[in-house]
Amino acid sequence: MTGTTRISPRSGAAFELGKGQRLKVIDPEGCQVSDLLAFRRGDVGEVVSNGRTFDYEETIKLTEGNTLWSNRSNRMLRIVEDTVGCHDFLLTPCSKDTFRHFYPDKPVHRGCFGNLAEALAPYGVTEDTIPTAFNVFMNVPVDGSSGKLEVLPPPSKAGDHIVLEAEMDLVIGLTACSAYASNGGSFRPIDYEIIG
Amino acid sequence: MTGTTRISPRSGAAFELGKGQRLKVIDPEGCQVSDLLAFRRGDVGEVVSNGRTFDYEETIKLTEGNTLWSNRSNRMLRIVEDTVGCHDFLLTPCSKDTFRHFYPDKPVHRGCFGNLAEALAPYGVTEDTIPTAFNVFMNVPVDGSSGKLEVLPPPSKAGDHIVLEAEMDLVIGLTACSAYASNGGSFRPIDYEIIG
Repeated sequence: MTGTTRISPRSGAAFELGKGQRLKVIDPEGCQVSDLLAFRRGDVGEVVSNGRTFDYEETIKLTEGNTLWSNRSNRMLRIVEDTVGCHDFLLTPCSKDTFRHFYPDKPVHRGCFGNLAEALAPYGVTEDTIPTAFNVFMNVPVDGSSGKLEVLPPPSKAGDHIVLEAEMDLVIGLTACSAYASNGGSFRPIDYEIIG
Repeated sequence: MTGTTRISPRSGAAFELGKGQRLKVIDPEGCQVSDLLAFRRGDVGEVVSNGRTFDYEETIKLTEGNTLWSNRSNRMLRIVEDTVGCHDFLLTPCSKDTFRHFYPDKPVHRGCFGNLAEALAPYGVTEDTIPTAFNVFMNVPVDGSSGKLEVLPPPSKAGDHIVLEAEMDLVIGLTACSAYASNGGSFRPIDYEIIG
């Protein structure tokens, strides 16, 4: 147990998570999203993959009991606890470009993408290799027949959390999301703990 | 117009497509899937992205009028004609690992992943940078409430096709799919034409 670390609103962090350790991501105030990336420590060409995860888990909704898989078909993180059950794995991290596209009247922000790129650069991760993130607490309902999706405020309440156990030695990228739509326009922090 | 090129069952091809040219992907016999990848020509760090596409198109079902976007938020391919309207952008190319996972009693095949990796290697594409493909004619219904997905035979009939126009100079990877589930267990060829 390392104690709780706070990620300030609209920022990000990167850190190591050893095989068997658990990462607890907490929404301390409620209604906030956290983009999560995972890379194999020491070999960051291996990265979490939404497509491989959808393949093996046979669902686009991941919760307790599901595993996040890598682009090399290895297990990276297992969801062992989840008080929300609402996360997104379809959409890429918000970025300067998504701000220009979705919020043309708002100031451009580098977004979760810029925050993840900066935090992960010391581990050798480059911008082009940042994939779709696992967007913790993000609420993206999909209409099964039309395929249409929308981004709604997260249902998470203060103190809600998810716990993921590492299946290999990892480098994790984690944010407190910067986009208006994903958190109902209220930018809040995210807390995390490394357990074990 | 280059005439029609045939991709043999369970194989793949790679070729260049210039900005403004159109690629017609044809299912010559019906009920077959073709995995399509796109990279920026001469700078293959830029690659088609399901997450960016879902972001900007606000749907997981892409058809005529929709655009496939890159990881750098640029437009790569615009769908200008589509006689089927059923394609998947959730699942990664079948591979040795997916064969071991889904068909443990069948011979292992390198799958679309292996076929794409070999065909694209001369352009500098490496295995780790192969993302989720745009799976032409692939039938993957999603239950919007549970999130569960399944892989059903494609609804495409002989002669059905999709036409995509390049929005930048591209390298394309294209297959005739090797997996049992995606084509109802009948491995068939795929035809393509480059127009313009």
